[in-house]
Amino acid sequence: MIQSETFLNFIHSAPGITPQEEVQILDSFKYITLNNKEFFLREGQICKQIAYVNKGCFSYFQLLANGKKSIIHFAFEDWWISDLESFLNRKVAATFLQALEPSELICIGRDEFEKWMTNSEAFRSCFALKTQRAYIKALERTGKDKSESAEEKYLRMLKEYPQIIQRVPNYDIAAYLGITPESLSRIRRKLAGDGNILPNVNIR
Amino acid sequence: MIQSETFLNFIHSAPGITPQEEVQILDSFKYITLNNKEFFLREGQICKQIAYVNKGCFSYFQLLANGKKSIIHFAFEDWWISDLESFLNRKVAATFLQALEPSELICIGRDEFEKWMTNSEAFRSCFALKTQRAYIKALERTGKDKSESAEEKYLRMLKEYPQIIQRVPNYDIAAYLGITPESLSRIRRKLAGDGNILPNVNIR
Repeated sequence: MIQSETFLNFIHSAPGITPQEEVQILDSFKYITLNNKEFFLREGQICKQIAYVNKGCFSYFQLLANGKKSIIHFAFEDWWISDLESFLNRKVAATFLQALEPSELICIGRDEFEKWMTNSEAFRSCFALKTQRAYIKALERTGKDKSESAEEKYLRMLKEYPQIIQRVPNYDIAAYLGITPESLSRIRRKLAGDGNILPNVNIR
Repeated sequence: MIQSETFLNFIHSAPGITPQEEVQILDSFKYITLNNKEFFLREGQICKQIAYVNKGCFSYFQLLANGKKSIIHFAFEDWWISDLESFLNRKVAATFLQALEPSELICIGRDEFEKWMTNSEAFRSCFALKTQRAYIKALERTGKDKSESAEEKYLRMLKEYPQIIQRVPNYDIAAYLGITPESLSRIRRKLAGDGNILPNVNIR
């Protein structure tokens, strides 16, 4: 029985959902918990679930041909995680989804997801709207990522993910910014020297 | 009367579309032509149309606070263009859409678009599927953009957009890669020196 208030509100907000549908849809979701560093998905697997982050945080990343780890995004509470291409098209994933803290997810499997995508207009709309918003955000980030300096990216990241410094290891922040951990330290020293007020840094 | 075969096929492929719906939906689209360098959308305007590129090519870009031009993506034939956030939410656009050649678009305005999104399940599915695919592609690119060297990005760009060298000016290719035109020339010289077979470069 799902009790997460934010999750229940999200399902309740699906356009035109009926009370009966709501109960049945909620019944398709299950809790799972992951330990710190545990993987929700590894490269080479087929992603069989899509999940709501109820507690904890995740990094969604790729290992590139050049050997580098590239973090596409982080996901904190109230985000959804999955490798959509793998999940929707039953393709082998090229990405990893890893917990960065002990985490709790609310998941739906592929068959149940497909059932509601076929049978519920409210569920379909809800998913389409979520994807649309995520796409708009992804394009916004793309434009900035290409032309900002590492320092500008760092400052934008602090605005976008205010809790990131407290919750994400430094090497993952560097992999998200596409810089080395040494460059990250340099940026922090420079910004501190410039008299910027920065959040407390909790080195992990 | 729309005669573009690829466009007609696209509408025809909408899941569950009826022949009657198809005729009515097609009737909502109109041709427009743009000259080389003409804008389909400028920052500060509200994007009032979504368009299929029937002929020509476009750059979708932002001017960032640091004064740099950042090209989010190019669009060639059989792509769709719009600033989705501006179009769907009637917000002032933060982006530009500019023709890089004399171009022909097949457009639908906001009211007609909304009418079909409300009244046609086939149209809704078609749009949702298109957005979903675009989102998956955007995330794929994000991962690579962050961790690849400029040279790796350049080689990937040639695979993704094989016609780009012939059709897009050098300074726009540089803005897409997030590097200076000088760095772009250096990469080309290096790759030519490495004995790579590169497409003919037509400097514009």
